[in-house]
Amino acid sequence: MMTPMMNTQLTITSLMAHAEQINGSVEVVSVTADNPRHRYTYREAFARARQLANVLQSLGLEQGDTVATFAWNDYRHLEIYYAVSCSGMICHTINPRLFPEQIEYIVNHGQDKWIFVDLTMVPLLESLQHLMPEVKGFVVMTDQAHMPETSLTNAKCYEALLADQATEFSWPELDENTPSALCYTSGTTGNPKGVMYTHRSTLLHCYASIAPDVFGLSVKDVALPIVPMFHVNGWGMVYSAPMTGAKLVMPGPKMGCGETLCKLINEEKVTVSAGVPTVWLALLDYLKKTNSTIDTLNRLTVGGAACPFTIFDDFRNKYGVDVQQGWGMTEMNPLGTFNGNAPAVVNDMPAEQYDKMRLKQGRPVFGVEMKIVDADNKPLPWDGKSAGAVKVRGPWIINEYYRYDGQTLDDDGWFETGDVASIDEYGYMQITDRVKDVIKSGGEWISSIELENCAVNHPKVAEAAVVGMPHPTWSERPLLLVILHEGETLSREEMLAWFEGKVAKWWIPEECLFVDALPHTATGKLSKKDIRAEYADFSWPNL
Amino acid sequence: MMTPMMNTQLTITSLMAHAEQINGSVEVVSVTADNPRHRYTYREAFARARQLANVLQSLGLEQGDTVATFAWNDYRHLEIYYAVSCSGMICHTINPRLFPEQIEYIVNHGQDKWIFVDLTMVPLLESLQHLMPEVKGFVVMTDQAHMPETSLTNAKCYEALLADQATEFSWPELDENTPSALCYTSGTTGNPKGVMYTHRSTLLHCYASIAPDVFGLSVKDVALPIVPMFHVNGWGMVYSAPMTGAKLVMPGPKMGCGETLCKLINEEKVTVSAGVPTVWLALLDYLKKTNSTIDTLNRLTVGGAACPFTIFDDFRNKYGVDVQQGWGMTEMNPLGTFNGNAPAVVNDMPAEQYDKMRLKQGRPVFGVEMKIVDADNKPLPWDGKSAGAVKVRGPWIINEYYRYDGQTLDDDGWFETGDVASIDEYGYMQITDRVKDVIKSGGEWISSIELENCAVNHPKVAEAAVVGMPHPTWSERPLLLVILHEGETLSREEMLAWFEGKVAKWWIPEECLFVDALPHTATGKLSKKDIRAEYADFSWPNL
Ligand SMILES: Nc1ncnc2c1ncn2[C@@H]1O[C@H](COP(=O)(O)OP(=O)(O)OP(=O)(O)O)[C@@H](O)[C@H]1O
Ligand SMILES: Nc1ncnc2c1ncn2[C@@H]1O[C@H](COP(=O)(O)OP(=O)(O)OP(=O)(O)O)[C@@H](O)[C@H]1O
Ligand SMILES: [Mg+2]
Ligand SMILES: [Mg+2]
Repeated sequence: MMTPMMNTQLTITSLMAHAEQINGSVEVVSVTADNPRHRYTYREAFARARQLANVLQSLGLEQGDTVATFAWNDYRHLEIYYAVSCSGMICHTINPRLFPEQIEYIVNHGQDKWIFVDLTMVPLLESLQHLMPEVKGFVVMTDQAHMPETSLTNAKCYEALLADQATEFSWPELDENTPSALCYTSGTTGNPKGVMYTHRSTLLHCYASIAPDVFGLSVKDVALPIVPMFHVNGWGMVYSAPMTGAKLVMPGPKMGCGETLCKLINEEKVTVSAGVPTVWLALLDYLKKTNSTIDTLNRLTVGGAACPFTIFDDFRNKYGVDVQQGWGMTEMNPLGTFNGNAPAVVNDMPAEQYDKMRLKQGRPVFGVEMKIVDADNKPLPWDGKSAGAVKVRGPWIINEYYRYDGQTLDDDGWFETGDVASIDEYGYMQITDRVKDVIKSGGEWISSIELENCAVNHPKVAEAAVVGMPHPTWSERPLLLVILHEGETLSREEMLAWFEGKVAKWWIPEECLFVDALPHTATGKLSKKDIRAEYADFSWPNL
Repeated sequence: MMTPMMNTQLTITSLMAHAEQINGSVEVVSVTADNPRHRYTYREAFARARQLANVLQSLGLEQGDTVATFAWNDYRHLEIYYAVSCSGMICHTINPRLFPEQIEYIVNHGQDKWIFVDLTMVPLLESLQHLMPEVKGFVVMTDQAHMPETSLTNAKCYEALLADQATEFSWPELDENTPSALCYTSGTTGNPKGVMYTHRSTLLHCYASIAPDVFGLSVKDVALPIVPMFHVNGWGMVYSAPMTGAKLVMPGPKMGCGETLCKLINEEKVTVSAGVPTVWLALLDYLKKTNSTIDTLNRLTVGGAACPFTIFDDFRNKYGVDVQQGWGMTEMNPLGTFNGNAPAVVNDMPAEQYDKMRLKQGRPVFGVEMKIVDADNKPLPWDGKSAGAVKVRGPWIINEYYRYDGQTLDDDGWFETGDVASIDEYGYMQITDRVKDVIKSGGEWISSIELENCAVNHPKVAEAAVVGMPHPTWSERPLLLVILHEGETLSREEMLAWFEGKVAKWWIPEECLFVDALPHTATGKLSKKDIRAEYADFSWPNL
């Protein structure tokens, strides 16, 4: 198409070229299974990506082919990201914590041709490879010295393959709508579904995410993405760090280890990080136990699940770190809203009100159009009270699930997120529930998340889940499941009395059961569909 | 085209919708000819833009039509920007300081249908309207009370037109490659040429320009664009401020008035500003004379011409303001390079070396691909020494001048900027000259800009220009023209001796003439083509 301005395509290849030329001397530091602290520069990373592109060709892979990774956040995974996507192939990152049947489904549904596998995950794949008949071979991400004996068919050593190849490679010119990466949803509410990112969606997400009011990523930063690269591209930091020239620090298999994280932050002078709530709880725990500090860190992003107040408060008051919440999903590349810098009207609020605002999921990032609707798909007001199903539109939001028969978008072209939220007059969204988890009681909605938050504020409660169970009069009523802290005891009546005055009377759970464990998904979220299945035969005591 | 992610178009309309919904309550403050301090919110601005869109329709204007503005930076100009572009029409901003024959050429070449004119520029247009036979009418940007008697044909009052219209308007769905605005180059080196921006180029430029290492624009900011909206969209701040929720402060006709600028900064708590060097000299002058301070301002951008060291140094040391240089051009929307946050390797340099780095034009903004080439179009190394013609590529760089017979791009699809520069290993570009102004002496290049900088560092020199004049032995030799400060005297020999030890011996100007005035363009740049024309008959004394 003839346009008055150049029709230059937004490709990851252009990002890589920019990063190599402008930020080539900036460091990339990784923890790996075969090296406790590997370091090199972006320049070396992209030279090796070109070697790897030659490897991909030599393996017989072609544009449009899918290449899978079972890997942690480290420099080899970074090289694979760029080599695969910029070759016009699809980088399919897989969560190794998924259940075997989910992995089987995903590898076959994704039509993966080759799999790159971290040293630590070789045993896992050995046990699963008979379920992946179409996979042609495996590349173990290590050097000759660490190459294991393995039953994986057609197993190659990553470093040996690279060593045979030149650092010259001529990247293909790609249309910006070329698919670049594939990631499946967490499977919290059903089967994982495939989301195919494009070069365009990745680049636009990248531009939007580095804005000062979002990640605010700069050449002055040292970034530590703790959110795994096997889930929604590590929230894009493996793209945005090289793009801006931020130094990149990656924890490899030590993602959940407070000690490693604390050391990396202090030794590499990390300024910004991102991860799910459980990671931050692990780090806080370690910091308290060891009386350590993390002085260089000035902000961190928490997302993937609601942020408990303690995370926000402890980091701010004890360690001087601003906790910035993000909300998003696999289908959104992932960024939807962000709670970073606040407008003056929020900054000027009294402390308690300000904290409440900062605990919300944040304001839509520019590029994400958002609405909340009622059961009839009518838009609800942004009054901070009306809660409805969240729908979104935008250039990094899914159009169609990968190889999917159902309908991905509604009839007007909006994507229904599956989340229920309110939005206030300043644009702050607050998630109250999932559409599938919200409890429909007497024609009104009860937020299961709010009840869970209330329950875990009880000093004796370690974890809580609330699900709606069928009820003859009210359609559904809330059932509370509670795990107590070790050694604690609490009666059903005491637990339920705790809610009085804290939530509306008719919200108070109908029944409370004490349990030893609750089912979780591979990304560590409560699996309410499993809870509902487990209690399918439950009946209310006083009926 | 079917894409796995939504193919949402990047339009100014989407930016406006976002800004209205998320940042609707943020203020826009303007100085205008009819009001010393007008203030309202983005919400009101965009409601009025919808009224104006109805006005445009009622005037018979259609998608693809060109609507011109002769206007300063103020809220009505802002409304016109959005109403015109989002209606699918083209907002053609015109520099009122151009020479009459340039204005005639531009209005007719741009095929302007209607002209919006500031109160202060009515007399100018009255004197020129006979040269614009295709223009159907004029809208005077004022209210009924201030509406002047005017000989403009078909003259309408802006506020009267708006008052008749509803605030509802259904914006058309636009392809992102739809033209949005038209701006002509400054005409420094020849006739002004038309550059047609698109919605896509504007949005991508906007995303890139708000990055932390560029303008770093945030919801926490109060932005004062002093760079005129009639030149390259005021460097995009009228888009990026609403997009991020920064408060927007606009100086109207008082752009060059140190007192107004100082007052606006202090009273509106401005944090960031942008303008050409002359504006900053005017402000510094006022601050010194009145012993004023500008405490809220923490950074400012200077661009359009090289930044004298005094601007950088005085703002930093006397007023605590970081001066960040940008380089760009009409053909680049305008941003090409930016000298904002520096990488660690630069920050750690000794003070003198650091200052030298900060006076360079900066590093390419992500999206701008850059190379420097020699006379044979061979790429030169990025060694900070080799100087060559700068060529660029990217999504906000011109593809084809508007209604132009010549070739806009080179055979490989690069745009030749007309600037000569070196680039160092960290990606910092330093402009040494214009291709048309560089002095070719004995097969080597002499930078006219460097000689001018050296001359103005002499305490008695107010302004200097260096042009290459034909020379029988050396092809060209530098001729220096000097304006002395009032009351000062200096001999030819003293002036030339000043260069000794400061530049290479063979760079020292061949001759020096003292003059009373030097010709400038409408954007205040030295017009070397006029100087060369004026001295066409010059001959070297010692030949
Ligand atoms: N900051 C947050 N606060 C609360 N919930 C969040 C936040 N960020 C993400 N979420 C939840 O995570 C979901 C996105 O998660 P993800 O895409 O990993 O898969 P999933 O929705 O858990 O799984 P599936 O779609 O397969 O059921 C969101 O829809 C939302 O429910
Ligand atoms: N920071 C800067 N330092 C030095 N020169 C600059 C800087 N920024 C811009 N310029 C100069 O300004 C030019 C762009 O100016 P503009 O687009 O307004 O028109 P022009 O080039 O002066 O006029 P024309 O193209 O009609 O001759 C650049 O090509 C460069 O020469
Ligand atoms: Mg989901
Ligand atoms: Mg030019």
